[in-house]
Amino acid sequence: MSGYVRHLAERAREAASVIARLDGDARRRLIERMADALSERRAEVMAANAEDMERGRSNGLGDAVLDRLKLDDARIDSMAQGLREVAAQTDPLGVVTRRDVRPNGVVIERQRIPLGLIAMIYEARPNVTADAAALCLKAGNAVLLRGGSEARASNAAIAACLHSALRAGNLPEAAVSLVSDPAREHVLELLQLSDLIDLAIPRGGESLIRFVAEHARVPVIKHYKGVCHLYVDASADVAQALDLLVDGKASRPGVCNALETLLVHRDIAATFLPRAMERLSARGVEVRGCERTRAIVPQARAATDDDYAAEYLDFVIAVRVVDDLDAALAHIARYGSDHTEVIATQDAAAADAFVRGTRSSAVMVNASSRFNDGGQLGLGAEIGISTTRLHAYGPMGAESLTIERFVVRGEGQVRHADSRG
Amino acid sequence: MSGYVRHLAERAREAASVIARLDGDARRRLIERMADALSERRAEVMAANAEDMERGRSNGLGDAVLDRLKLDDARIDSMAQGLREVAAQTDPLGVVTRRDVRPNGVVIERQRIPLGLIAMIYEARPNVTADAAALCLKAGNAVLLRGGSEARASNAAIAACLHSALRAGNLPEAAVSLVSDPAREHVLELLQLSDLIDLAIPRGGESLIRFVAEHARVPVIKHYKGVCHLYVDASADVAQALDLLVDGKASRPGVCNALETLLVHRDIAATFLPRAMERLSARGVEVRGCERTRAIVPQARAATDDDYAAEYLDFVIAVRVVDDLDAALAHIARYGSDHTEVIATQDAAAADAFVRGTRSSAVMVNASSRFNDGGQLGLGAEIGISTTRLHAYGPMGAESLTIERFVVRGEGQVRHADSRG
Repeated sequence: MSGYVRHLAERAREAASVIARLDGDARRRLIERMADALSERRAEVMAANAEDMERGRSNGLGDAVLDRLKLDDARIDSMAQGLREVAAQTDPLGVVTRRDVRPNGVVIERQRIPLGLIAMIYEARPNVTADAAALCLKAGNAVLLRGGSEARASNAAIAACLHSALRAGNLPEAAVSLVSDPAREHVLELLQLSDLIDLAIPRGGESLIRFVAEHARVPVIKHYKGVCHLYVDASADVAQALDLLVDGKASRPGVCNALETLLVHRDIAATFLPRAMERLSARGVEVRGCERTRAIVPQARAATDDDYAAEYLDFVIAVRVVDDLDAALAHIARYGSDHTEVIATQDAAAADAFVRGTRSSAVMVNASSRFNDGGQLGLGAEIGISTTRLHAYGPMGAESLTIERFVVRGEGQVRHADSRG
Repeated sequence: MSGYVRHLAERAREAASVIARLDGDARRRLIERMADALSERRAEVMAANAEDMERGRSNGLGDAVLDRLKLDDARIDSMAQGLREVAAQTDPLGVVTRRDVRPNGVVIERQRIPLGLIAMIYEARPNVTADAAALCLKAGNAVLLRGGSEARASNAAIAACLHSALRAGNLPEAAVSLVSDPAREHVLELLQLSDLIDLAIPRGGESLIRFVAEHARVPVIKHYKGVCHLYVDASADVAQALDLLVDGKASRPGVCNALETLLVHRDIAATFLPRAMERLSARGVEVRGCERTRAIVPQARAATDDDYAAEYLDFVIAVRVVDDLDAALAHIARYGSDHTEVIATQDAAAADAFVRGTRSSAVMVNASSRFNDGGQLGLGAEIGISTTRLHAYGPMGAESLTIERFVVRGEGQVRHADSRG
């Protein structure tokens, strides 16, 4: 270990205590200044991004990666706008979330405080640099950012904008610290710093997340893949269920809240599947089905066990006809990833049984899987979607970057009477 | 790895899904049956405990350990009573904690669900076996228990009582699974089972907790030591502050919420310290002070830097005179353990600055540090006191063994208009 990341983290941790003491108004103004700086200094950011794009092209990066990497006027506007939305959110700190008076007159309050120093380890999309910094600062934390090397010039230019906003407020630049040296060993060093880093959030492909989970000595909140299911119950409204299917699968197949598997109750399969096939084909979606599916829609290819475990992130869907809701729940328990499950039903009892029977971070009744997203669920923005069943589960907004502690107010109460003078 | 613990954990995980489906009433009755079984079968439990005590004595265990190990009628009554209190608590599950209607008419609810399978790794005190099982079950979880080898007969006898209560409800015994083979390698195996165990909670000495933190691939919530401070502000009510000092230090010095360090504002030191010395001496507490302390109370021994970092767990206290509240906060930031800090003050502004300036799990204004305890804070019981700034911070009751997820209810809403048929 070179000590390079430890040194960065020590300075970031000192900065965290400065940020923690700011009031909500000061944190709001800071993030607004960051949005302004990004807008005003866009020429620098785009020049740096052009450099990353050129290096990416000559290194043979794929079109999908290059698309995620690219920044243009519209994307910079949208990044700045995202920051303004985070700034405008209700302050998550200092709120008394619960209050209780004990029989001895002591008043117990629960109160949100910052986590401290958060490390973000991510790939490709440079907007994460701005989003993660804004959410961490909104919640009174400092952040240590480790982006992908393919975006290093863009990330440095964005960080320079954020630093100018910190300086303008007489605040330490180290509150947003960038691990700019691309060596992989620095990630390893970072993951050992359990005395300095309160939480690490990896965001990117499965191999990055597994690497972080495997090597971390600091607490990690992660999300692996999203194998999301739509279960069409016997009592579903067919037109609604078809819309949920098309939206979930075809509106943006490359994201983690897209549908990967369709489960259909046998009593509605003959009605539903031919129309589903038609709608999916019209959107270019390939269907892979079980034998009972193919008996109804023979043009579907045969699905294997691997298909039910797959996160395609593509215009492909696995389909299975099931005997009943319990069979759908058993399928989800076996193949699911705790991300998002949807039921289409007009039967309130079936909806309740489905909600009770799934343990995923989000369960949707007659609503699209695509709503499992911080913005859509009213959080304003998200730093990631957790499938770790600890601390935060589902989209993580600014509030997920805080922790509740106890504040106890008394008038000299003691626990043992013989302590009194 | 022998696979012995994996096999236990697989069965416990299956049992977890059975427990998760019980309603609150069934979980309450289950824990009441456990309390009854402990009361009724106390002869078996005491016979097993006598065996542990005898082996402990011939192995040369110290008196403090033997005292923690010992069970008698009163302690079994108190264990059963603790279970009845957990049973009687409000059900933490299924509660809609927040509700929001989005502009598109979709209803967003947050709802508590169980964590899943919790592993508890602990030492000596056999009552943890019953307490941990009751809290985990109350929150709809299964539990994998790994107690210390010195208590193995007692733990097995208590687990047998809990199992009889599970059987009487036609529930799987594996919901409370005991790792009874004492080999240390089983703890190592348990800590690797990230596909089966949702959370591990170590409870015991610092070396046990460090061992767990170092080897765990599963999420861990831990508490290290409690270096708790009382800061006596210039504006303190002296009589109140003296009571808080004696209660915090002398009412039970061996516990983690006992005071270890006293910080005194220089303007009140000459008034406060002589009376503090008198009260502490009367309770047999040794005082180790800084030079300014010893100028006022020369009978105090000289404190070193190690004294300010120490968790004495004994009738000893470190004392320092500080220039002001900021100096007290700086001392706590340097030597504190994020556990419990107390201010004695009649100045509301000083109280606010102290609360804002400390990041500990509990901060007390004119109330004893000894109130940082699940029962005292109204949680009914605790499975431990977390100083991990994630998920739970401070005493963890049944609610800390749940997680909030999203339930979304719509009428066919989709995210993209062109998904509609």
